[in-house]
Amino acid sequence: MKRARTRAHRLQLSFDIAGLPMLSEFSLIERYFSQPATTRRVPAAQNSGRGAGATLGIGDDCALLAPKRGQQLAISTDMLVSGRHFFPDVSPFALGHKALAVNLSDLAAMGAAPRAFTLALSMPKAEESWLQAFSDGLFRMANAHGCELIGGDTTGGPHVTISITVFGDVPAARALRRDAARPGDDIWVSGQLGNARAGLGIKRQEWSVKDAASAAIAIKALEQPEPRVALGIALRGVAHAALDLSDGLAGDLLHILKRSNMRATVDVDLVPRSPVIDALPAAAQLPCVLAGGDDYELCFTAPVEARAKIQRSAKQVGVLVTRIGTIEGLAALTDTPAIDWCNHAGPVSFTASGYDHFHAD
Amino acid sequence: MKRARTRAHRLQLSFDIAGLPMLSEFSLIERYFSQPATTRRVPAAQNSGRGAGATLGIGDDCALLAPKRGQQLAISTDMLVSGRHFFPDVSPFALGHKALAVNLSDLAAMGAAPRAFTLALSMPKAEESWLQAFSDGLFRMANAHGCELIGGDTTGGPHVTISITVFGDVPAARALRRDAARPGDDIWVSGQLGNARAGLGIKRQEWSVKDAASAAIAIKALEQPEPRVALGIALRGVAHAALDLSDGLAGDLLHILKRSNMRATVDVDLVPRSPVIDALPAAAQLPCVLAGGDDYELCFTAPVEARAKIQRSAKQVGVLVTRIGTIEGLAALTDTPAIDWCNHAGPVSFTASGYDHFHAD
Repeated sequence: MKRARTRAHRLQLSFDIAGLPMLSEFSLIERYFSQPATTRRVPAAQNSGRGAGATLGIGDDCALLAPKRGQQLAISTDMLVSGRHFFPDVSPFALGHKALAVNLSDLAAMGAAPRAFTLALSMPKAEESWLQAFSDGLFRMANAHGCELIGGDTTGGPHVTISITVFGDVPAARALRRDAARPGDDIWVSGQLGNARAGLGIKRQEWSVKDAASAAIAIKALEQPEPRVALGIALRGVAHAALDLSDGLAGDLLHILKRSNMRATVDVDLVPRSPVIDALPAAAQLPCVLAGGDDYELCFTAPVEARAKIQRSAKQVGVLVTRIGTIEGLAALTDTPAIDWCNHAGPVSFTASGYDHFHAD
Repeated sequence: MKRARTRAHRLQLSFDIAGLPMLSEFSLIERYFSQPATTRRVPAAQNSGRGAGATLGIGDDCALLAPKRGQQLAISTDMLVSGRHFFPDVSPFALGHKALAVNLSDLAAMGAAPRAFTLALSMPKAEESWLQAFSDGLFRMANAHGCELIGGDTTGGPHVTISITVFGDVPAARALRRDAARPGDDIWVSGQLGNARAGLGIKRQEWSVKDAASAAIAIKALEQPEPRVALGIALRGVAHAALDLSDGLAGDLLHILKRSNMRATVDVDLVPRSPVIDALPAAAQLPCVLAGGDDYELCFTAPVEARAKIQRSAKQVGVLVTRIGTIEGLAALTDTPAIDWCNHAGPVSFTASGYDHFHAD
């Protein structure tokens, strides 16, 4: 019955002015965004609401979802706009990957386990090859994290715009918040920072990187970030505050400091960077690492006593973690949240703030 | 402390090339999309997760939300694109109203009680007067339905694009689904159909309506639909199948029929229309009423025995409901879901289907 209906929908294929195949909204959703039941965690049609998956998936007015017993749903939304967050000619596979990855990164930053997501997509025309590759990249990421597409909206529009809302399970009391940093906490980051910004600079021809392998690493970091979901879950009840680095360490760490009403000292020499950064012009290196954006690594604070446990957990999930500084309380009522940058020789002046979508271009 | 931070953010005001005031993304969210605690149902900062509101609101990586005990979260997403779903010069107050209303309408169609929503918004520039009016329209609708903004994303982009994901509470077993129509069910609609499409035709100068009051009713129906939230909740456990009419009765009823594997007979003369429709050219009247789109009324099926109860419930919530036809089982294996239109004289030929965002313009 399901198969018969899909076949009927395919007859709705028609052609737009330019002769490109066009699909109706309904057949588009069914064709590219309804996975066969066998590849989904829980077939929606067979689920009565007591299992782990959504009770109703795509095809009704709403999906139905409940967190696991005793937990809450962590919810985050992002919007990606062509020409602003990605190059119009980016590989649609990479775009599908990244659109979900940046949302899963928000779940990781809360210590939440991915459950489901909704997708709203506008685009000038429904090109089959583009949609197939976008869908492949999206679902490879979704399936890797057990995250089910439960609803969506597709529409025509002058530019490709993607808005994803993602849902994860987290025990409320153990969620990693931004406002929980405490004096004396270590400041940690996962992975290596700056590679995505290095890749953006290559794409924009701000600089070139002679070594092809390094350039490929940088561009992959930009286009296909890996959300630190397993690390985020491992840090539940261990880390104090956490967020994911989307706008650059300098701006994002400041969010933790403002919400927690703290200061930080960060040793610039300790901030982990890959050899790719060494291939950049000297003046670009520190801005890429400290304020590059699009890293999608976790930045978190934790008590000194948790050092060994954090290193063990990070090793278990196969992610590098590095201590880069210390949280400090405000010295006086007039003191304000800020980062003191230093290196082995003393204070370092660094003032770049995070990426701001209305000021940068 | 909260107030001091808001004031500091206002200092970030700067000016873009055209000299219009620009706000950073962070101050924009804080200024226009963070309501004072007194006007919110549950102040997020004071809520520990055991109350009705979200545990974390705007300002962390994710919001935390759980359905009420024994219920599930109904979730729906819509995307509105300037020039496609609304005129670029539409009143921003009306746009804020409608952007949330169309999502609340999806909750209504499931019988879900609104709880919260996320907002993703892209726009070419952050104009203060536009944002203030948009925010006013959005929050008037949100507050009228006890629906809290729990997260969002704002970004620059070449066109105004709004994506809202909405959350409501519903007891899973009593949710109004599309696949639950049964042979012999009455088919009902709320309100009057076609007014929004009549308004669209006025705006597009497809026709004119001499009576200014009628024209105003039609345009208001287009720009500021009222979601039938209270009716949807009243229909829990009473109606069988339901959906909201966003693409026109002809196309949307067909969704119920396909999902339920049923046919329908609808008496065209019974479909409720306002006097506004009589002011349109004769050839436009039936298409507006049966396939106009943007009605945001509920279409639902219910057993004959429920007639009195439905009329009582509708009266209680102050919404007109009208029986327009009957659900029938498929006659044979080769029979397919379809609508048989008729009037007092016999069969009526009507073939317009619902609005399709990739084919219409």
